Amino acid sequence: MSKRICIIGSGNWGSAIARIVGANVKRHPNLFQLNVKMWVMEEMVNGEKLTSIINTRHENVKYLPGQHIPDNIVAVPDIVDAAEDADLLVFVVPHQFISSSCAPLMGQLKPGAKGISLVKGFSLHPEGGIRLISSLINELLDIPISVLMGANIANEVANEMFCETTIGCSDSDEKSQVLLKSLFSTPNFRVTVVNDSTTVELCGALKNIVACGAGFVDGLSLGDNTKAAVIRLGLMEMIRFTEIFLSTPNSSMSTFLESCGVADLITTCYGGRNRRVSEAFVKTKKSFVDLEKEMLGGQKLQGPETAAEVNFMLKQRDMESKFPLFTSVHQICMGEKPVEEFIDDLRNHPEHMIAANAHL
Amino acid sequence: MSKRICIIGSGNWGSAIARIVGANVKRHPNLFQLNVKMWVMEEMVNGEKLTSIINTRHENVKYLPGQHIPDNIVAVPDIVDAAEDADLLVFVVPHQFISSSCAPLMGQLKPGAKGISLVKGFSLHPEGGIRLISSLINELLDIPISVLMGANIANEVANEMFCETTIGCSDSDEKSQVLLKSLFSTPNFRVTVVNDSTTVELCGALKNIVACGAGFVDGLSLGDNTKAAVIRLGLMEMIRFTEIFLSTPNSSMSTFLESCGVADLITTCYGGRNRRVSEAFVKTKKSFVDLEKEMLGGQKLQGPETAAEVNFMLKQRDMESKFPLFTSVHQICMGEKPVEEFIDDLRNHPEHMIAANAHL
Repeated sequence: MSKRICIIGSGNWGSAIARIVGANVKRHPNLFQLNVKMWVMEEMVNGEKLTSIINTRHENVKYLPGQHIPDNIVAVPDIVDAAEDADLLVFVVPHQFISSSCAPLMGQLKPGAKGISLVKGFSLHPEGGIRLISSLINELLDIPISVLMGANIANEVANEMFCETTIGCSDSDEKSQVLLKSLFSTPNFRVTVVNDSTTVELCGALKNIVACGAGFVDGLSLGDNTKAAVIRLGLMEMIRFTEIFLSTPNSSMSTFLESCGVADLITTCYGGRNRRVSEAFVKTKKSFVDLEKEMLGGQKLQGPETAAEVNFMLKQRDMESKFPLFTSVHQICMGEKPVEEFIDDLRNHPEHMIAANAHL
Repeated sequence: MSKRICIIGSGNWGSAIARIVGANVKRHPNLFQLNVKMWVMEEMVNGEKLTSIINTRHENVKYLPGQHIPDNIVAVPDIVDAAEDADLLVFVVPHQFISSSCAPLMGQLKPGAKGISLVKGFSLHPEGGIRLISSLINELLDIPISVLMGANIANEVANEMFCETTIGCSDSDEKSQVLLKSLFSTPNFRVTVVNDSTTVELCGALKNIVACGAGFVDGLSLGDNTKAAVIRLGLMEMIRFTEIFLSTPNSSMSTFLESCGVADLITTCYGGRNRRVSEAFVKTKKSFVDLEKEMLGGQKLQGPETAAEVNFMLKQRDMESKFPLFTSVHQICMGEKPVEEFIDDLRNHPEHMIAANAHL
C-alpha cells in the first residue's frame, strides 16, 4: 500500500523540495510510489512551456536554475489531474494563491488523502485577524494538514547544504510521523517531527514581525546586545501569542527550541528580507511600499502585514500592552510612531516584570 | 539596615558595572549605603597609580577610557580593606584570578555577607572536569553566591545601549531578589531574576563551545541554514549537559530562554571572539595558540579550553556520543580531526532521533 505523492507548486522552494521528494520516494519503494506529479502553473519561458522544460530537461530553469530535478518528478499543468489520485499532497505555493489553488480540488481528492503545508505566512480571517494556512486548506478541502517549517533558505537546501527542519504532524500516531519523515529526511536535510503543528506554523509567520524589529535595531546602529535583546523579547512574545492563540499556557515550550522556532528566528533576524528592508526603512526614510518595490523584485514583505493582522487580534482582546514589541513594530510600520521610539517601548516589557521583579 | 556594596575587580566589565552600581546605590538610599569600595589591582599608568586616577579623575583610563565612573565609587588597592565591611561583594575579575583574589579574604568578611559573581567561565576541578566559579568562591569564602550573566558586551553597557541580563539568585526569597535587581537594573540594563543560578552560570561557559562551531561554519562558508542548525544543536546540548550536571531533567528549560541563554548564545555566535578565532582557524590553518596571540592581544580564548573540560566529564560518563557537537568541537580544537568532518558529526545527532524519529 505505497503512497502516491503530489507536489502542489513549483517555485523556488517547491522545486528545491521536489529534488528531495523525488530522491526519497526512490529510496523507500515500500512506502511510496515512484512517480510524483508536480503541479506547475503553466507559463512560457523563452517560447517554451515550463512543464515541458521540466519534463524534458529536468530543470526548473525559471525558479531553480542549475539544479537537476529527478526524472520521476512529472510536471503537470492541470491541478486536478496532478492531485486527484494522490494520497499525500505537498502544498508549496505562495500563501496568497492557496485559496485559488484549492478551489478546483474541492470534492476531487482521493478518500483518505492528507496534506502537508510548506507555505509560510497567514491568511486573513474573514472576520479579521489571522488564520493558519493549514486551517484554510483544511476548511477548503476537508483533509488533515501537517506542516513543515524551519531555517530553510531554498537555494541552500537545493545546494544540499546541511540544515534542519521541523514537521508538525497532524496525526500523533507513529506511522504517520515515520511516513512524513521518510519523505523529507536526507543526510543534509534533518527532520524532527513534533505533534504541535499549530506552534510550528505560528513560528513561521510571527518571526517576520521580530525580523522587522531586528532590522530597526540594525538601521539605528544599536549594537549587538540590543539586537540580542530584541530577538529574545520577540521570541518571548511569539511564545505568549501562541499560548493565547492555542488557549494552552506553556504547552509547547520545547517546540520553540526546534528548527522552526529559535533557529528560523535567528536566520531571519540576521539574513532575511524583512530585516533587510526594515533596516533600509530606517536609513532611507522611504516607505515600506516603495522599498518593497525597489528591493524585493516582486517578492512580498510579510512582516508589516503579519504585524497588522496580529495587532488586530491583540486589540480585540485588549492585549496590546502585553506585546510591546509586536505592537511597536506595527505602529512604526504604519507610520504611527517614529522608529526612534522602538526601544523605549521595550523598557518596561512584561518579561522584565515577572514574579519578584514586578516591584521595580 | 541599608547594605554596603563592594566591587572586587576593575577591568573593562568591572568598570562598566561600577557605573551602574554607583548610580543605583544613589537612587535607592533606603536599600544601599552611598559609598562603594572597588578593589583595584594597583598598577602604574603613565607614572600615576590607577587607584588615584580613578579617585581623582573618576575614570578608569586604562580599561574603560572615556567613561565617567560615579564619584561614590572609591578605588581601594587593598582587597581586605575593600571587602571587610561589605554586605554584598560583586566579583568581576577574570576567572583565572578568582582563587588568588579570594585567598586574602578568607575569614575576613562580615558575618552574613553574600556575593554575586559576574565572572564567566569555569574553573578546573582538582579531580578533573569543571567547577562553577560560584562554587569555587563559595568553597573558599563560605558565603552564598548569586550570578549575573547575559548578552552584555561591556563597552555597549558602558555606552548605555539597551540590553538585558539575567541574575541567578542563590536565595529564593523575594527580598534578596528585589535587592539584587535594585542594584543592577537601569532603563538600559534590564534585569530578570531567576532562582536557577547554576543554569545561568553554565550557559555563560558552554556558549563558547558552540561559538567555536559557529566559527567553523563561517570559516567553511556553509551558509545561514547550517549556522542556524549548529547554533540550535549547540543550545540543545547546553540544555542536555545542564540536565546531567544538575541531575534534574527538564527542570530549567525556561532559563535557557532568558538573556543568559539564547540571547547571549546568539551574540556570541555572531559577534564574539571565539567565533572569530575559530573562523580564522579554518581559513588560515594556523593553530589556536598562534591565533590567540595574534588576534586577541592578551585576552584568553575560552571555547577550546571549556570544550576540553566538558569533554573530560563526558568521557568519564561515556556520554561523548550523546554530545556530538561538543565532542567534535573539542576534537577539532585538539587537532584530532579535520574541521571538514564537523558537519558529518552532526548528521545523526540524538536530537534528530527522538521518539518516532528513532527509526530513520
